[in-house]
Amino acid sequence: MSEERPHVVILGGGFGGLYAARALAGAPVRVTLVDRRNHHLFQPLLYQVATAALAAPDVAAPIRRILRRQENATVLLAEAGAVDTVERRVVLDEADLAYDYLVVATGMEHSYFGNDAWAEHAPGLKTIEDAFEVRRRVFLAFEHAEREPDAERRTPWLTFAVIGAGPTGVELAGALREIATRTLTRDFRNFDPAETRVVLVDLADRVLPTFPERLSERAAEMLRERGIELRLGSRVTGIDERGVTLGDVLLPARTVLWAAGVKPSPLAAGLDAPLTPDGRVEVAPDLSVPGHPEIFVVGDLAAVRDGSGWVPGMAPGAIQEGRAAAANVLRSVRGEERRAFGYRDRGVLATIGRSAAVARIGRFHLSGFLAWVLWLFIHVFWLIGFRDRLVVMFEWAWAYLTYQRSARVIVGTAPGRARR
Amino acid sequence: MSEERPHVVILGGGFGGLYAARALAGAPVRVTLVDRRNHHLFQPLLYQVATAALAAPDVAAPIRRILRRQENATVLLAEAGAVDTVERRVVLDEADLAYDYLVVATGMEHSYFGNDAWAEHAPGLKTIEDAFEVRRRVFLAFEHAEREPDAERRTPWLTFAVIGAGPTGVELAGALREIATRTLTRDFRNFDPAETRVVLVDLADRVLPTFPERLSERAAEMLRERGIELRLGSRVTGIDERGVTLGDVLLPARTVLWAAGVKPSPLAAGLDAPLTPDGRVEVAPDLSVPGHPEIFVVGDLAAVRDGSGWVPGMAPGAIQEGRAAAANVLRSVRGEERRAFGYRDRGVLATIGRSAAVARIGRFHLSGFLAWVLWLFIHVFWLIGFRDRLVVMFEWAWAYLTYQRSARVIVGTAPGRARR
Repeated sequence: MSEERPHVVILGGGFGGLYAARALAGAPVRVTLVDRRNHHLFQPLLYQVATAALAAPDVAAPIRRILRRQENATVLLAEAGAVDTVERRVVLDEADLAYDYLVVATGMEHSYFGNDAWAEHAPGLKTIEDAFEVRRRVFLAFEHAEREPDAERRTPWLTFAVIGAGPTGVELAGALREIATRTLTRDFRNFDPAETRVVLVDLADRVLPTFPERLSERAAEMLRERGIELRLGSRVTGIDERGVTLGDVLLPARTVLWAAGVKPSPLAAGLDAPLTPDGRVEVAPDLSVPGHPEIFVVGDLAAVRDGSGWVPGMAPGAIQEGRAAAANVLRSVRGEERRAFGYRDRGVLATIGRSAAVARIGRFHLSGFLAWVLWLFIHVFWLIGFRDRLVVMFEWAWAYLTYQRSARVIVGTAPGRARR
Repeated sequence: MSEERPHVVILGGGFGGLYAARALAGAPVRVTLVDRRNHHLFQPLLYQVATAALAAPDVAAPIRRILRRQENATVLLAEAGAVDTVERRVVLDEADLAYDYLVVATGMEHSYFGNDAWAEHAPGLKTIEDAFEVRRRVFLAFEHAEREPDAERRTPWLTFAVIGAGPTGVELAGALREIATRTLTRDFRNFDPAETRVVLVDLADRVLPTFPERLSERAAEMLRERGIELRLGSRVTGIDERGVTLGDVLLPARTVLWAAGVKPSPLAAGLDAPLTPDGRVEVAPDLSVPGHPEIFVVGDLAAVRDGSGWVPGMAPGAIQEGRAAAANVLRSVRGEERRAFGYRDRGVLATIGRSAAVARIGRFHLSGFLAWVLWLFIHVFWLIGFRDRLVVMFEWAWAYLTYQRSARVIVGTAPGRARR
């Protein structure tokens, strides 16, 4: 294995980066995948770690284990500080990495629309650490309620606000309500968990704004049936320890969860690339940066044209783009012409809770139990790793039969000693 | 349910406290169990969370879920600051709790023999947070080794020191070596994980000093066969970021784990009770505090006579004492005479790794594969919760067949941003 093989550096081990790496298996290149965490995270199921239905290892697999059999792939745990597009080097914390081809797949971070002070009061859900923090706050809220003798002061502990009614927010809200009405039914003596309020907030006038209207309506029905309150067309003007302010009115809620804004990874700005207004990289049809054919951007960080619109920032898009970028790298290595990326829209899915989901598959709409079964099946299928599939299927079967949530561990609890 | 029923307050939701609470099910008392964490931890398997073989929720179950069907039991998440033995109140962080009977089962904490500065460099293994920290450091060490081009500087990253050769230390050392030689075999490109050194240190001149001598010898054999180095009769004189100093000699090791000293929970000192030199409470034969028949102490915190010796500080002792204390509470409530506690020594177990364990059952000694199967069986049997038993059996079966460790998630990794 000579060093003359082209070096493909991939930044990010999420869907885009990981599938790009796997698509280069057996190819005449050296691959180095860099991530600041050791694991690939199956983000669609992260809300289940946050709501204690699954344990972290069920949805996170070590990247180097996934790639262990790929002889041309090396995995490095490091943070990419910047990209030097002239020298063709990635600046890591302790060394530089020279590349012949670069695939940037570092995704998005939370954005509080400029109100960074809100972050402390409204954790988001993008990483395992986020999920642990959300889980901690949610279950601690019930513990506080158990110890609060005054009913007036107890209510904010039993009020949960979820900001953002996209799939993540809807899934979180549904899970919170299930926790209250199913999981914790007999666990407390001083209050009835069914008193819990879950309020789902969005600026848009419907939930799941990127879904077809009829499915948004069905989802809203199912949410209301399950006791979730909707505040649509509502603007968040403040978040603090008392709760969230919508317009002028304070909603007292001790637990506020953020599933609303995202902003691009800081690497995007340094790629000498055209950016959209929200900071994503506008890539050429072959997914490369205009003017830098050796640099590709895939996943949420890339703004990829799809007809008159854009490829949505979800897992299927990232997977397809990762594979397509890898294929184009190989064409260039072989001296062939690259191909334009064509997104294959398989549809969208979101779940509200047990037996309740909405799905668009191609042009077909599904809602209710069938959509939910489809949601389960697809998510298990796409999990990486046979073991994780077995465990998740077991956890879900168990939860379905017993209504229990198996991962209710609060890490770092000692009240007054908040760990963060 | 009138308030005239006697109020039994139990401090601590480990083996002693939890089994005491369960033994009071259906009895004419009110039970309040207080713990500063929300979960009961199956400590014998905690080292498996630390070495990524199991996920935290597999060995931790929410206390209020375990007691949910026990109508006379309330669970409070709170930290007990002190006990007022005159007023018969427990001082919690936000309120006081009056008791008619008190069962103190708060166990032990880590002790670094007065060298608290060592704590930062040598985490112990008593809580889930500990296990996450150990897991983080262990797997990060391999990541550092992968990025270290200089072989001299790589060696300390691949050297792990475990201080304390009791069951926990032996189990940790065995698991570390298995990680190196089985789990990570193909995961790294820049070094061979089999180069890893695991050094097990103890002041005593044999491993498992509380076990019969012949079993200590067998365990030492099995440890050496698996490539673990033993430094017995060695005194630790210093621990810092370079490694551990034994006597005068520095052993360069970037990862040092503490399985050696313990000291009693601070509550012991305030119980107006006679203490042993190491600070445990010397209880009367009925497990109560001499002079305070309404206060019981059980578990690791209690020094309980067993013939000419003491009941060892392990799970079976705590379970038996918890049940016995509860039984004596009920006798007092009914106006009957109490009974002296009699420890039933079932034996001891420790595992070194796959197919390698030692066990004393009554007077019989076992070692090797049979002992290991027994170890597995007993630990699964005693896990609380059917679901946890199923999951743990599955994880172990998977690991046995594939040599993989399923829980290799490093939480809070970003190097340079060490989270603690």
